[in-house]
Amino acid sequence: MSELEEQAVPKHLTKMSEDFDRWYTEVIRLTEMADWSGVRGMMIVRPYGYAMWENIQRAFDGMIKESGHENAYFPLLIPHEYFVKEAEHVEGFAPEVAWVQYAGPKPVLKTPTEWTEEDMLQAAAGWLAQPLVIRPTSETIIGPIMKRYIQSHRDLPQLLNQWCNVLRWEMRTRLFLRTSEFLWQEGHTFHASHEEAAEEVLQILENYRAVAEDWLAIPVIKGRKTETEKFAGAEYTTSIEAMMRDGLALQAGTSHHFGQNFSRAYAIEFTNRSNERELAYTTSWGMSTRMIGGLVMAHGDDAGLVMPPKIAPVQVAIVPIFRDEESRRSVEDFLKPVTASLKGRIRFKVDWRDDRPGAKYAHWEIRGVPLRLEVGPRDVEAGQVVVVDRLSREKTALPEQGLAERLDVLLDDFHLRLYQRALDFRERHSHRPRTRQELVEIYRSGNGFSWAPFCDRVECELEIKDELGVTTRNKPFKVEGEFGDRCIWCGQPATTVVVLARSY
Amino acid sequence: MSELEEQAVPKHLTKMSEDFDRWYTEVIRLTEMADWSGVRGMMIVRPYGYAMWENIQRAFDGMIKESGHENAYFPLLIPHEYFVKEAEHVEGFAPEVAWVQYAGPKPVLKTPTEWTEEDMLQAAAGWLAQPLVIRPTSETIIGPIMKRYIQSHRDLPQLLNQWCNVLRWEMRTRLFLRTSEFLWQEGHTFHASHEEAAEEVLQILENYRAVAEDWLAIPVIKGRKTETEKFAGAEYTTSIEAMMRDGLALQAGTSHHFGQNFSRAYAIEFTNRSNERELAYTTSWGMSTRMIGGLVMAHGDDAGLVMPPKIAPVQVAIVPIFRDEESRRSVEDFLKPVTASLKGRIRFKVDWRDDRPGAKYAHWEIRGVPLRLEVGPRDVEAGQVVVVDRLSREKTALPEQGLAERLDVLLDDFHLRLYQRALDFRERHSHRPRTRQELVEIYRSGNGFSWAPFCDRVECELEIKDELGVTTRNKPFKVEGEFGDRCIWCGQPATTVVVLARSY
Repeated sequence: MSELEEQAVPKHLTKMSEDFDRWYTEVIRLTEMADWSGVRGMMIVRPYGYAMWENIQRAFDGMIKESGHENAYFPLLIPHEYFVKEAEHVEGFAPEVAWVQYAGPKPVLKTPTEWTEEDMLQAAAGWLAQPLVIRPTSETIIGPIMKRYIQSHRDLPQLLNQWCNVLRWEMRTRLFLRTSEFLWQEGHTFHASHEEAAEEVLQILENYRAVAEDWLAIPVIKGRKTETEKFAGAEYTTSIEAMMRDGLALQAGTSHHFGQNFSRAYAIEFTNRSNERELAYTTSWGMSTRMIGGLVMAHGDDAGLVMPPKIAPVQVAIVPIFRDEESRRSVEDFLKPVTASLKGRIRFKVDWRDDRPGAKYAHWEIRGVPLRLEVGPRDVEAGQVVVVDRLSREKTALPEQGLAERLDVLLDDFHLRLYQRALDFRERHSHRPRTRQELVEIYRSGNGFSWAPFCDRVECELEIKDELGVTTRNKPFKVEGEFGDRCIWCGQPATTVVVLARSY
Repeated sequence: MSELEEQAVPKHLTKMSEDFDRWYTEVIRLTEMADWSGVRGMMIVRPYGYAMWENIQRAFDGMIKESGHENAYFPLLIPHEYFVKEAEHVEGFAPEVAWVQYAGPKPVLKTPTEWTEEDMLQAAAGWLAQPLVIRPTSETIIGPIMKRYIQSHRDLPQLLNQWCNVLRWEMRTRLFLRTSEFLWQEGHTFHASHEEAAEEVLQILENYRAVAEDWLAIPVIKGRKTETEKFAGAEYTTSIEAMMRDGLALQAGTSHHFGQNFSRAYAIEFTNRSNERELAYTTSWGMSTRMIGGLVMAHGDDAGLVMPPKIAPVQVAIVPIFRDEESRRSVEDFLKPVTASLKGRIRFKVDWRDDRPGAKYAHWEIRGVPLRLEVGPRDVEAGQVVVVDRLSREKTALPEQGLAERLDVLLDDFHLRLYQRALDFRERHSHRPRTRQELVEIYRSGNGFSWAPFCDRVECELEIKDELGVTTRNKPFKVEGEFGDRCIWCGQPATTVVVLARSY
C-alpha cells in the first residue's frame, strides 16, 4: 500500500458511549471534516472542517483588530543560529522539529551510512551551511526581526499577529489535537513595561474565553499554568481549559508573558522615558485548529457532531420532501421566498440531492447541523415548515411568515442550551477531593476535573503525574468556596488551588 | 553583521523617474509594507502590506465561494515519491525546491565531506528514508489525496481552494515579485469532462480580471500562454497580464487546464455516465502576494504609493490641525460626529500623533492614501473639512453635512480615475510593429507591449527572447484591428497574435 492510500472511511459511526477514541476519529472522517493525509502525521482539513476554522478565525480576528492588533507574516524557516538563542525555549522545542539541511534538484535517497562517494558529493553540493528549522512557533524569528523596528518607547507597543502553519514532529498523532503540521494564529507583542505586557496577556486570554464560550459554546476555566506546564521560555503562561465529554481536559488557548527573557536573548532594547536603555517586555499567545477537535469532543453525541450555531458551516439544513415532479415543483416554489428571506442572514443549505429524505436526515444529523427544516406538500398547503432540533430532537411546525426572525431566535437559544449542557456536564464531573486518597479514587475509577489545594512544587506535581497520569491544568483565577491549607498530595503548606485532570 | 540584521531602511525616497528598481524597493520599505527578513530570499509582510493582502483575499474569496468553491488545507510537505510522478511538472519545479531530509533534535552543522564518523551516525539517525519537499505548489499532493474521494461522476466536480504559503528557492529575489517563500491561493478542481474543466479555467480567469481591474484598478489582458510559457505539466495555461509604470509586463494570475495529465500520473479515475472508467479532467489556478507588487508598480509615482481605494488599508487619513489645547479640543469635538458617521463604512485613521501637520501629510502621501482630510480651527468654524486628492493633488472644501456619502462618491471616482490613468498609460506604451525591424527598434530604445502576428513556434519564441530579452506574454482572447498573416519575426505563416514584452 502506498503511503497516501489510507484505509477507507468507515461506513457507520461507532457510538461515543462505546469507544470514545474511535468515535472521535470516525465522526471527523465520516462528516468530511478532516482526514489523515498519509504524510507523516499531517492531516487534510476538508471543506466542512475548514469552514469551521474560517468562522473561528473571523471571530478572533475581529476581537484582536478591535483592540489595535495587526496581522503580518514572517518567514516559515528559521536559521539555526536564531533558533538556539533562548536556552529554555530550544530545549523545549528541539526534539520535535524538522530541519531543512539540503536544497537541490534531487534529494539523496540513501541513508548517510550507505552513501557512495558520489552520494556524498551530491549531498555536499546542496548542503546548507546554515540549516533552517521549519517554525514550530515563531518567537525566535519574530523577535530578532522586530528588534530592528524598536528603538524608542515611542515605537512601543508593537501588537502583531500571524495566521499560519507550524510544524512539530509529533509521534503520537490525533486529528486536530496533535498533528505534525497544524494551523493557528500566533500573536507576538512588545511593550515598554512589565505591567502593560501583563495586561495584554490577560486581555488576549479573555478573547480566548470569548471565542470558546460565546462562539463555540464551550465553558472554560481561565488560570495560570504551573512551572512544569508553562511554555518553554516563558516567565508565566495562562490558559483556558475545557472539559471534553470523556471527562478529559483540553487546553484550548494559551497566552504567555515572557518578561524580558526573549528580549535578552535577542537584544530587543528601547530608550525609555527616562532616556535609559531597557529591554522590552514581550508576550505571545496562540490558538489553533485544536479548537475544532475541542468542539467535536465537547458537544458530540452517539449520533455524531452537534455544532454550535455561530461556528456551524451550515446552521439550517432544508430537506424538501416530494413524491413526483408536481409535488417537487410546489415545494420548490414554496421554498423560493423562504430561502430569499434567509440569504445573507443564516447559513443554510437546501438539499436537492438525488436521495431519500431519511438518508438526508442522517447526513445532516451526523454533521450536527443545529436545525433541520422539512418541507413536504402538506407543509406547503399549511404554509409552514417543520423544524427539527439537533439537541432536543423536538419537532415543531413554524409558519412561513416571519421564519427568518424565528430561526435567528432558535439558533441563539440553541447556543445557550448547548453551552448550558456542557456546563452542567462539567459540573457533574468536577470533584473537590478532601484527601489524597479521595483524589486517587477519582482517577482510579474515572475522570473529570479535581479542584484541590496544592503546594505548587515541581516534585509534587511530577509525582502526581507519575502515579495518577493526571496533570495540573491551571491555577484558576476564580476560586469559589473554601479549600484546606495543606497540599492535597504531600501535605505541605498549600500556596494555591489547582484544577487537576487527565488531558489531551 | 549577523544574517538578520539588514541594512537600515533609507530615509528618503528615490524618485521613480530616476531609478525605478530602487524606487520600488525603497517605497515598500519606507511605507512599512514589507522588508527583507535576512533569511534566504524570504520577506516579512508588515501590517500595511498584509492589510492589502487581506483585502485582496476578501475580494477573491467572495467570488469563488459564490460560484461553489470551498476552502480546504493540504500538507506543507510532499513525499518524494509523489512529487516526481508527473514528468514535465517535476522537471519544471525540481531545480527550485527545498528538501526536508533530516528531522532530529540537532542539525548536522558540517558539510558531508567534512563529517566525522560521529556526524555521519547522527545524520543517519535522523535521516528520512522518504524525503519530503516543501510545496512549491500542491498538484502533486492534492491529486493523489483527492483520488480517494472520487469514484463516480456523482463525486464531481470537486472545487477546492487553499490559501497558504509555498516555497521556491529563488536566486534573484525582489520584494513581493520573487521571494523564496510567498503567500498565495491555489485552486484545484476535478471535473467529469474536458469542456467543464475548460469553462472553470475561464471563469477563474475572469475572477482574476475582476480582482485586478475592479479592485486594484489595474487593466489586464486575458489570453492564453504559448507552449514555452505554460505551467509545467499543463495542457494549456491562461493568464492576465498587466503593464507596470516602467513599461514591463507583470503576470498577475494564471489558470491552467491539465487535461488528464495529472489524473493519469495519479490514477484519478471515475465511473462516467456510460458506466465506463475515465480519467478526471483537472485544473489549477493561482494568484499571489505578487499582486501587491503589481499595484505598487502600476500606480505609484515619484512621491510614493498611490492606493486603489478598494484595497487601501486606509482610504481616508484625517489630519487635525491645532495650535493650542483649546483649538485641539475644538477640532476633537468637531471630529467626533464626523468619524462616527464614517465608522464601518470607510477605512479611515485620525492621525493624533505628536508631530507637525506637514510631517503627517508626507506620512500619508508616501503611503498613497487616496484622500487626506485636513481639519483646523477655521474649518471647524465653517463646518467643513478640506479634502486633498492623492492623484490630482486638488484641494476641496466639503461641508460636514453628508460627508460620508460624499467621500463614498469621491473614492469610487478615485478608483475610476486611477484605472483610466493606468489604461491610458498602457495605451501610450502599446505598439503595433509591422516589421521585425520595428520590433527590434522598440526594445532597443525602450519598453512596453507589442502586439504582433506570430507563428507560435517554440524556436522562434526562444530566438526573440535571446535577441531582445522579450517574451510572449500571452495570446490575447480579444484582438482588435487587422494584423498581417506572417510572423513578425520569422516571416512564416502566422497562426495567432501575441503580446510581447519584457517582464517581471
